[in-house]
Amino acid sequence: MSGSEPTRVLIGVNQSSIKGYPHASISSKGAFEWTLQKIVRDNIPGFKLLFLHVQVPDEDGFDDMDSIYASPEDFKSMKAKEKNKGLHLLEYFVQRCHEIGIACEAWIRKGDPQETVCQEVKRVKPDILVVGCRGLGPFQRVFVGTVSEFCVKHAECPVITIKRSAEETPQDPVDD
Amino acid sequence: MSGSEPTRVLIGVNQSSIKGYPHASISSKGAFEWTLQKIVRDNIPGFKLLFLHVQVPDEDGFDDMDSIYASPEDFKSMKAKEKNKGLHLLEYFVQRCHEIGIACEAWIRKGDPQETVCQEVKRVKPDILVVGCRGLGPFQRVFVGTVSEFCVKHAECPVITIKRSAEETPQDPVDD
Repeated sequence: MSGSEPTRVLIGVNQSSIKGYPHASISSKGAFEWTLQKIVRDNIPGFKLLFLHVQVPDEDGFDDMDSIYASPEDFKSMKAKEKNKGLHLLEYFVQRCHEIGIACEAWIRKGDPQETVCQEVKRVKPDILVVGCRGLGPFQRVFVGTVSEFCVKHAECPVITIKRSAEETPQDPVDD
Repeated sequence: MSGSEPTRVLIGVNQSSIKGYPHASISSKGAFEWTLQKIVRDNIPGFKLLFLHVQVPDEDGFDDMDSIYASPEDFKSMKAKEKNKGLHLLEYFVQRCHEIGIACEAWIRKGDPQETVCQEVKRVKPDILVVGCRGLGPFQRVFVGTVSEFCVKHAECPVITIKRSAEETPQDPVDD
């Protein structure tokens, strides 16, 4: 099977909800590291990782609530700032892939996360979609995020859902 | 990463609903072949496949509806027959694994499929659970089987759900 095309794994990544610091969420990092350790293993040439970050305009604009917009230029700078946060997030994953030597691609889309992920699956046709889930505290075992639940039902490819273990769950879910 | 333990993949398998012939369902075969092709690839020593077949007493007893039970012996022979059907199913997968040279284990449990699969995940602690889903005809795209949906929410490990493609869906769902 060595001569065949690599398995293309699309990983949906999002940033931590900790305000003001644009780093990858615990769930996203967990899903990525798990994929490397349990699926890719030492078969680096057999896989290609695709990272998709969906920016939710409302959510990503949160830090700009106190900003004052007086000219169209102000909006442009806000958009640039939002985009930079997304790029910073993707940079983390692309950097890790380059260290390991695994092929990768990363991009940003704007929109509703669950709809956008499924549209991108349709467009990019990955072999697998990997989605991490938040919210697995000791009292939330049965909860699986709505994005992952939607993707399991609607994405036109096999889906891996990775729940965060209780130990990795921050005290305050906002700190993911 | 070559020195580490193989990734243990638990695959839930069931038999075709075509009455009277105990072979693997299209969904089960699909999930198995997909796992080999897209996850295992040529990294045979990196993986171990575990096959779990959950026998539902009611369902598996269907062929015996017309039987007449006159003594405890009759029930024993029915149980043996049921068990044989399950063994025949597992034999198919174990045989394929031996051809490929991949390590495997297979076993049967009785009970409610979704509860039993999650209990076995808790007991066996696989790295991944793979579940196939039926019912993806052209008009049923959003349907994902209740067993897979339950496992995504409740199983204490990452879960891969594999929907059958429309082309693989038999005209009559009973023929899966």
